[in-house]
This record gives sequence, C-alpha cells and structure tokens, in this order.
Amino acid sequence: MAHPILFSLEPALPLQAPLGKGLGAEQGALQMRRFPDGESYIRVLSTVSGRHCILLANLLQPDEKILPIRFLAHTLRAQGAASIGMIAPYLCYMRQDTIFNPGEALTSAIFAELVSSTVDWLVTVDPHLHRYHNLNEIYSIPALAISGMPALKAWIATQPDTLLVGPDAESRQWVETLANAAGRPFLVGNKQRHGDRDVRVSLPADSNITRYCTAVIIDDVISSGHTVLQTIAALKHAGVRRIICAAVHGVFAEDADRKILDAGADQLAVSNSIPGDHSTFDLSPLIIPAIHTMLADIDRGGRRDQQS
Amino acid sequence: MAHPILFSLEPALPLQAPLGKGLGAEQGALQMRRFPDGESYIRVLSTVSGRHCILLANLLQPDEKILPIRFLAHTLRAQGAASIGMIAPYLCYMRQDTIFNPGEALTSAIFAELVSSTVDWLVTVDPHLHRYHNLNEIYSIPALAISGMPALKAWIATQPDTLLVGPDAESRQWVETLANAAGRPFLVGNKQRHGDRDVRVSLPADSNITRYCTAVIIDDVISSGHTVLQTIAALKHAGVRRIICAAVHGVFAEDADRKILDAGADQLAVSNSIPGDHSTFDLSPLIIPAIHTMLADIDRGGRRDQQS
Repeated sequence: MAHPILFSLEPALPLQAPLGKGLGAEQGALQMRRFPDGESYIRVLSTVSGRHCILLANLLQPDEKILPIRFLAHTLRAQGAASIGMIAPYLCYMRQDTIFNPGEALTSAIFAELVSSTVDWLVTVDPHLHRYHNLNEIYSIPALAISGMPALKAWIATQPDTLLVGPDAESRQWVETLANAAGRPFLVGNKQRHGDRDVRVSLPADSNITRYCTAVIIDDVISSGHTVLQTIAALKHAGVRRIICAAVHGVFAEDADRKILDAGADQLAVSNSIPGDHSTFDLSPLIIPAIHTMLADIDRGGRRDQQS
Repeated sequence: MAHPILFSLEPALPLQAPLGKGLGAEQGALQMRRFPDGESYIRVLSTVSGRHCILLANLLQPDEKILPIRFLAHTLRAQGAASIGMIAPYLCYMRQDTIFNPGEALTSAIFAELVSSTVDWLVTVDPHLHRYHNLNEIYSIPALAISGMPALKAWIATQPDTLLVGPDAESRQWVETLANAAGRPFLVGNKQRHGDRDVRVSLPADSNITRYCTAVIIDDVISSGHTVLQTIAALKHAGVRRIICAAVHGVFAEDADRKILDAGADQLAVSNSIPGDHSTFDLSPLIIPAIHTMLADIDRGGRRDQQS
C-alpha cells in the first residue's frame, strides 16, 4: 500500500507538518474557496485512487466546516480513495451528551452519526467523555480517543520545582496521574458552581503552597476559562508567585487566553490541537501510532469496533 | 390530520408570517443559540408528535446552516413528528451542476443527498436548473420547484408603461413569457463574457427604446449583479430615463444592491424569498399550494417522485 495522503481542511493547521512528516505522508493538494454567496468550492488536485486519505480538521466553530468536509470526503471516494479517515484533534459536540430538558437536540449523537456517514474512521485526542464512556456509543465507525496527557507530562517534566493544581474533583484523574508520572506534588481544589458563569474555586488548607516556584493549573480543555480564572484567584490569594495554565486543548472562547493572562497567569501551555498563540507541546507523536493502527486494520480488511 | 407546524430556522424570515397565516399553521416554538465555541444548541418547545412539521430555511450562506437544520429535523423525528418537510425559497448549491474540471466536488449532488437524508420533502422556488432539468435528478425525496414568475408578473402589471428587458439569451424564456402575460413589449440583450467578472451587454438597435417610461430588467436571480450592472450601462447609454431591476431572488452578494442603485437603477424589486430591504412581492400564495400537495401525498401514504 502506498503512503497515505494527508489533506488539511484549513491552511496552517499546526499538526499538518509534523503529522505529514511523521507518517511519511504526501501532503494532499486542494483548491478550496467560497463564492460571494457563501457556497464552497472544492477541487482535489492530488491523485488519490487506491490511496488511504486522511483529513486533518480543526472542529472549533464546527457548523460551517462539516459541509466542506463532506464535500471533500465524497469527492475523494468518487475518485477511488481506498479509505478516508479524519483526524479531529479537538472533537466538537461532546457536551450535549444527554437530553437535559425535554425537546433538546442530542447534538453529540446527531453529529456523530453524520461524521460516521462521511468518513471511515476517526482519531481524536481527549474528547469530553462524561456520560459517554466510549466514542463507539455514538460513532458507528472505528473511533479512537487517545490521551494527550503524555505530551503534557513530558513538557511538565522540563519545568523545575512545580506544584500541579487541579481546579476541581473532576480534574483529579489527570492531575494525580500526571503528578505521579512526573514525580511532582499536587493538590486539587474544590469548585462550587453558582450558575452558568458563576464558578468559585477554593484550595485545601496547605501551608506549603508557596514553597514551590511555580503552580501549574492542569485541565483537559480551557474553553471559557471561568474555572481557570477562579483557580488563579485562589492561588494568588494563597501567595503563589508564578502560575502556568496547562491543558491539552486551548479553545479559549471569547478571548479567554487574554483574560487568563490579564488575571495574572504567567504562561499558557497547550497542545497544537487547535491553531493559536499558546501551542507549547506537540501531539503528533501520540496521534501517529493511532493512525497506523487504523490503516493497518483497514489493510487487514478488518474493522476496529472497540475504542482502545 | 391536525394543522401543520411551521418552524423558522432564523428569526424574522419574511415568508414566516404569510406562510403561517396562509397554511393555518401553528408557529413552532424553538430555542436556538450558539455556545461561545460555535456549537449550536437547539430545543423544540412545541408538541410535534403526530404532526406535519415544516422547516422554513434561508439557504444563503448555507454551510453554517445545514447542521442546525439536521439537528432540528432529527429532534422532531425523535419526538414523533408525522413528517418533516423543508421550504427553501432560495435553493443553494445548484451552480456546480457538473464537474467542469477534474477533481471538483459535485456539490449540487452531495448537498442534495444530505438534504434528502435529513427531511422528507422539499419545496423551492426557481432553483438554478441549467444542466439538471429536474430536482429529482439529484434529490431522492419529493422535491417541487415552483416558479415565482407569476408573482413577478402580477407586480409588473401594476407598473405603467414599462419595457421589459432581458440581459441575455438565457433570460429570454422568462422575459418573453412575462411580457406576453402582462401585455408588455420586451427586448433581449446580448451578453459577452470576457472572464469571471468581465461581462458586457449590448442591446439590439431599437429606435423606440426611449419611448417607454420605465425599463424593467428581468432576471431569475441577482447575485453579484455584474450582468445587471452592464445592462444598466447599456440602457443608460441608449437614453432610458427610469430603470427598475426585478428578479425572483435578490441574493445581492458583496453589496450588489448598493452597487446597482449607485449605477443608476431607480428601484430594485425582488420577492420575499431572502431577507433584505428590497422585498416587493410575496411568494407565499405560490408556495402554499405546493405544500398542500406535499402534505396531501403524505397523508395518502404515497410518494411524489415526479417534480411538477
């Protein structure tokens, strides 16, 4: 089987070059533009017949992106691609994982069904699995969720004299594992939610908290940043001098990154899953083995129905 | 069967009130919003079980709209709707009706397939049928294309002493029919295309052209307005005093309406298919019988596989 072809749905996605290099993949050539009335034009310039095609997509602001993805996938299929997979380092539509109020659209399942009818497999990193325990509860294609925490751990290991801080009980799973793996101390805060945007974080009484040079707040994703902002306030109140906010995914909705730096964080450290200014560690070494697994399964003619 | 429920995918679509009134439909109640990260939230507040549901959608700038439409349709179905149809007064993705260059996405067919897997039927007005002769070449659901020209004709009949002008040979089909129906003279220009945006229109030698009070340029859709702008220039050059630009659909991409008025048109007259400032005539009396046809077919348990 020839080397795969990697198509990027947007120019300058930070994972495009490292994934292409690590996979030994050809970079797919596309023309993509919008007409003045907002319709998309897509043309595949690479020869894809008999080849494994991989679409790298940034699924932030997803609504406007799903149709171009579908146009591209159908066109690759029409041209004889052997398989079409999608790398969505950040997976959208995972939060509405149940019907909280009657009449709500279960967008997680509807989106998953549409993706499952568009591509042959999916690889993503640390999706929001809360009520779902496995992507295959909603995705009917082989869907692998890998963890980006090993890349975050490797970066933390380069930072001397750090205390890891989890904002809330939910973050304990990552913080404790990371701290043990990196040989660092950790603490976990207590989050009280008083409304959609009213979140307060308190820290356990710990007289040693100022003993460390740097506190690293750890989360899987920084979205609106409300929880992180409250954690910064609590750390500042406790006298911590230097604060880093680290997460796998930096969504930074509504200028959250600026707000976090304004609130006194000294640094943001996130992966290259989403384009942005704070990309600090590379996920490609973790993603590449997952892609190899998918392509090997296809070449064996099998299906991978279990998420590992 | 109870009266249908009409859901509008956007607030203030101009056809919502007249369609609701003309159908005797209940206005469907929805919550729709976007989260800061761009994901959509949709909640159906109406009781839809056993009811015919009709989605009114404005498909300009379509890419960001198809996912909310699919979320809504799937949710209505999950709640037991008897049927789900879509009124798309302006139908997008009809221009890429063939593969002009190897590797192009045949977006018309891919979009049609997606809509066909989302709703049960479609009604639209004057879609761009050029290489396709019938919507059912690409839509696998019952799809009715009605003509908005009768509404345009009725409006022209109220304008005294008009000469109808078709910009090019393609427009002759509408202009000749309209002129005969309204008892008005007409002429058809000659369009030469010298590039994507370089279009020139010349008028036939006609010493009587200034005899009429008003020239009405007729088209099915005004999009970028390049053709209309060239026709205005030709009419001005011929000494015409008053110019109206009339069409079924006013897309007006890239401020085309302002450019047309700046170029010396005295008025724009388009239907209420698309929200905008120049809505002059109402399509609902033409659309309503098409909806009745669709719902009657469903109630009979039949399928309408022919476009009328």
